[in-house]
Amino acid sequence: MQIDGKHWTTIWLCDDGISVGVIDQSKLPHQFSTKILRSCNDACKAISNMVVRGAPLIGVTAAYGLMLAVQEDPSDKSIEEASNQLFHSRPTAINLAWAIERVSKKLSLVDKSQRAYIAKKEAGLIAEEDISICKAIGHHGYQLFEEIASSRGPERVMEPLRVLTHCNAGWLATVDWGTALAPIYKWHRNGRKVHVWVDETRPRNQGASLTAFELASEGIPHKVVVDNAGGYLMQKGMVDIVIVGTDRTTSCGDVCNKIGTYLKALAAKDNKIPFYVALPYSSIDWSIKDSSLIPIEIRSEKEVAYIEGKSISQNSKGNSSVVRLIPEESQSYNPGFDITPVRLVSGFITEKGFVQPGGGFSEKLFSI
Amino acid sequence: MQIDGKHWTTIWLCDDGISVGVIDQSKLPHQFSTKILRSCNDACKAISNMVVRGAPLIGVTAAYGLMLAVQEDPSDKSIEEASNQLFHSRPTAINLAWAIERVSKKLSLVDKSQRAYIAKKEAGLIAEEDISICKAIGHHGYQLFEEIASSRGPERVMEPLRVLTHCNAGWLATVDWGTALAPIYKWHRNGRKVHVWVDETRPRNQGASLTAFELASEGIPHKVVVDNAGGYLMQKGMVDIVIVGTDRTTSCGDVCNKIGTYLKALAAKDNKIPFYVALPYSSIDWSIKDSSLIPIEIRSEKEVAYIEGKSISQNSKGNSSVVRLIPEESQSYNPGFDITPVRLVSGFITEKGFVQPGGGFSEKLFSI
Repeated sequence: MQIDGKHWTTIWLCDDGISVGVIDQSKLPHQFSTKILRSCNDACKAISNMVVRGAPLIGVTAAYGLMLAVQEDPSDKSIEEASNQLFHSRPTAINLAWAIERVSKKLSLVDKSQRAYIAKKEAGLIAEEDISICKAIGHHGYQLFEEIASSRGPERVMEPLRVLTHCNAGWLATVDWGTALAPIYKWHRNGRKVHVWVDETRPRNQGASLTAFELASEGIPHKVVVDNAGGYLMQKGMVDIVIVGTDRTTSCGDVCNKIGTYLKALAAKDNKIPFYVALPYSSIDWSIKDSSLIPIEIRSEKEVAYIEGKSISQNSKGNSSVVRLIPEESQSYNPGFDITPVRLVSGFITEKGFVQPGGGFSEKLFSI
Repeated sequence: MQIDGKHWTTIWLCDDGISVGVIDQSKLPHQFSTKILRSCNDACKAISNMVVRGAPLIGVTAAYGLMLAVQEDPSDKSIEEASNQLFHSRPTAINLAWAIERVSKKLSLVDKSQRAYIAKKEAGLIAEEDISICKAIGHHGYQLFEEIASSRGPERVMEPLRVLTHCNAGWLATVDWGTALAPIYKWHRNGRKVHVWVDETRPRNQGASLTAFELASEGIPHKVVVDNAGGYLMQKGMVDIVIVGTDRTTSCGDVCNKIGTYLKALAAKDNKIPFYVALPYSSIDWSIKDSSLIPIEIRSEKEVAYIEGKSISQNSKGNSSVVRLIPEESQSYNPGFDITPVRLVSGFITEKGFVQPGGGFSEKLFSI
């Protein structure tokens, strides 16, 4: 996607052919900078500190992390240790395990001398596939947008499609294009009108900082709202569709996504507004039927107690600044994700097409 | 209630007998300071800038505002102008209109020379009544807590009652005791165990700053959570009761309250958790049956784009600091309240006792 007229992806193999570049998302939206990952440890830190985030991008970063480990030491032990370290860098996104497994399986089939080459090839392939997958999600989502826009009746055909999204499932969460935002980009680039309600998505504010940054960079009309506001917007008929990504979706269709997604799904259901989940197949966890078994990351309470932004104070204007929000005597609690039960989901937009929830869901996923 | 061991109310008549003192709530939780209101204009500004806030306290402040106007000029014209100015200082809380009407009705019955005395007497009476009302809400809420605590079964009798609340409906929203928090204070003072989940309540963070401050000052166990987290807590069985206040409740029982309340009510319903509204009768709007007619305040988008907190930066440590959260190119939208339909409410706790929603609701309100 575009930043100041230049095309970027979130992650890339550097010109030296051995290190990996990423956009440092922890500094957005007020500072655009990049970071070079030179070791598997660098990759793990980038994932756990949320320099990179978003389930698909976490997967791609893990694949490159394994490449970095193998470049240093191609032994079985090194692969096992690196896989283990990467696997534990964040617990919820299933793409992480999926990418590690995919690369390490390939590595197990070849001689040590070949492993650096194979790891690089496979990581590159995963990154390229991610772009194609997101483009395909954008294509299928576009058709859905067509349906929803025309269902509003001919008198509203010229009005912008009003989309609400939670957290960031845009190109910053993937390599390019994004999942939930891919149809929005395609819609906008085709000259169709759209207006996006961006949930700020406390505590890490991925909506206010990343989604808003993405949309502003592409010149797409949007407004940031607090996470509390979505119910009001839906009650007032100001939302045509809710679309979100997912960190892990069970084969029954229960959707684990950023904390607060469930509340928006409830409001969408209560107001008869379609609620869609955009996801690559790599976000499906085929092993879990009971979504209560998905490990939910409990993150640092500091993320609730403090917030970072751009200072407007005289003596530090423009600098990044951290402020404390709660009394010194108070504690906080910070679960990172929640589960939206499949009964609240109108449908799934995958790279292969739509899947409706209900009877034989996992068979339907297989059959398209 | 207690702050550092000293008893405070949120508003008081100063020793000079003509000016009015208030706690400056816009500075909490990091700075405790007071402000003196010397004119009706001061009172209007205190209400619109949220130096005082909370529906019952807004009502009391308006009553004192009218007193300040009448002290200066007791003419009919002055009363009318002051009433009008106060009425428009904030649009949603019904207590504002209720208090203005009550005081100006009394003033209309007496000679100009008597008006300053009568206004002071009536404002004082409203403030005193507010304390009694909140105490009574605390009493009835206590009985509800008993029921809910014992319904959890004998094996959990020693566990703390887990209450989730949104925004601030504590003593800072009233003169003393609060509405939704009054039963919690009574419970705690009676030696019963309680744990409060405090919704931070973006964008103004009344939960993180005011409710947390109140609970910390009284030594009541609590944790601040982001507004997104309540659904997760309820899904995981970590909440026994949700209790909130209201800015205006229709005679059908639809509850207008701080933005985001509706989302918590949906989650409570979905997880079969009792959702209660604590309110004085002065928060009931008998004139409106259709809750969509309640004027919802659309507040400044700056409240979403910027946030204030206590700086932890080296060069400004401990100072209040404002930071920008969203990209310079992005806009925001900031509705202040939403409507929780009566179908999502388990019951109402008033100063006269419980009222269950459903058939003949407004008759029930009259009959207790």
